[in-house]
Amino acid sequence: MNAKKDRRTFIKQVAAIGSGFVLAGGNVSASAQEPESDIFEVFKKRRSVRKFKSTPVPDEHITKILEAARYAPTPRNRQDWKFIVVKDKTKIDELKDQCIKMAGDNSKQYYTDYLSAPVYIVILAGAKTRSPENELLSGAVAAGNIFLAARALGYGSVFCRNSVPEEIARKVFNISDDYQWVCITPVGVPDEWPETPPKKKLEEFIVENQFT
Amino acid sequence: MNAKKDRRTFIKQVAAIGSGFVLAGGNVSASAQEPESDIFEVFKKRRSVRKFKSTPVPDEHITKILEAARYAPTPRNRQDWKFIVVKDKTKIDELKDQCIKMAGDNSKQYYTDYLSAPVYIVILAGAKTRSPENELLSGAVAAGNIFLAARALGYGSVFCRNSVPEEIARKVFNISDDYQWVCITPVGVPDEWPETPPKKKLEEFIVENQFT
Repeated sequence: MNAKKDRRTFIKQVAAIGSGFVLAGGNVSASAQEPESDIFEVFKKRRSVRKFKSTPVPDEHITKILEAARYAPTPRNRQDWKFIVVKDKTKIDELKDQCIKMAGDNSKQYYTDYLSAPVYIVILAGAKTRSPENELLSGAVAAGNIFLAARALGYGSVFCRNSVPEEIARKVFNISDDYQWVCITPVGVPDEWPETPPKKKLEEFIVENQFT
Repeated sequence: MNAKKDRRTFIKQVAAIGSGFVLAGGNVSASAQEPESDIFEVFKKRRSVRKFKSTPVPDEHITKILEAARYAPTPRNRQDWKFIVVKDKTKIDELKDQCIKMAGDNSKQYYTDYLSAPVYIVILAGAKTRSPENELLSGAVAAGNIFLAARALGYGSVFCRNSVPEEIARKVFNISDDYQWVCITPVGVPDEWPETPPKKKLEEFIVENQFT
């Protein structure tokens, strides 16, 4: 069965009739786990992943993922971002220990799973500009490119802003006040690809021209 | 000349040597203006566009673009977004008039160009949740998907958060306090595709493991 073709046909149908649809649960097909370069497939196949295999991520993949981030729009082209690439296992373990220490022993399994990826990317946005909130949002868009590029190459990621508390991240990675905390994401081969969570129908999001 | 292939070879080289590069200026090749489905090409070819042709954007393209937004990660899968799709020329002109009225006659050409697209999408994020800032960032990631999907289909867009002031947008589109203003973006065929603005080298963004 040509799942990819079927899915495209389906999307065409949905687009043609202009209606939304709720994503079904069910098993994740094998093709959902493979690298994928078609952007509309990548949007759909990206998943938030919180447990990883130890399979290494080659440096050229990290470079490609960060290149994607670099092309995100940025206020007045300032590009006031930093990306901390964390591959040092000692550093990752330090982060894990600090998180568990703060959240308590019950959080041990959660953080052990969450911090099982071989690579983490911390996304930071400039704080000392005239529109810090715009920089922060621009950092989020750059992070979005990272999630998509990672999925295109076959990796899971997850937008993590609170589970790893900002104050811990600032200490562990020595982040100064020059930068705002956007998020941290793992990059790695998922222990398993989660199913698509239930999604609202497209029409629930859409407002035509203005709120009435 | 096969520009696409050349570019891919170049990216491979860059990835292989692990170094960054500054994007050259120069003329935009014809291929930069066509629809493009390869995600790594889309990252590079997306441009912030501020003047458009009147060429209509078919509804199925708008649907496809909003589908892309719908798949963005969202805190606890809340999907607390609204997308106002503005196709009503009267509404767009009202927005233009209000912006010029606020910014003064000198801004007339700017807003006339900026508001020349056939479609605008307003991106809003829920305000009444326990982590409004996370919702706001999630809205920015959804907006990022919109920019990329638009480019994939051959359209320009631009992250606009301040040029169209929030207070004007709230009035024109009747946006309540239930939603946070993320941004508005045009979707349309560019009057011309801008060149890639100068970009920092990749290594200027990267910090290894921690700040020293």
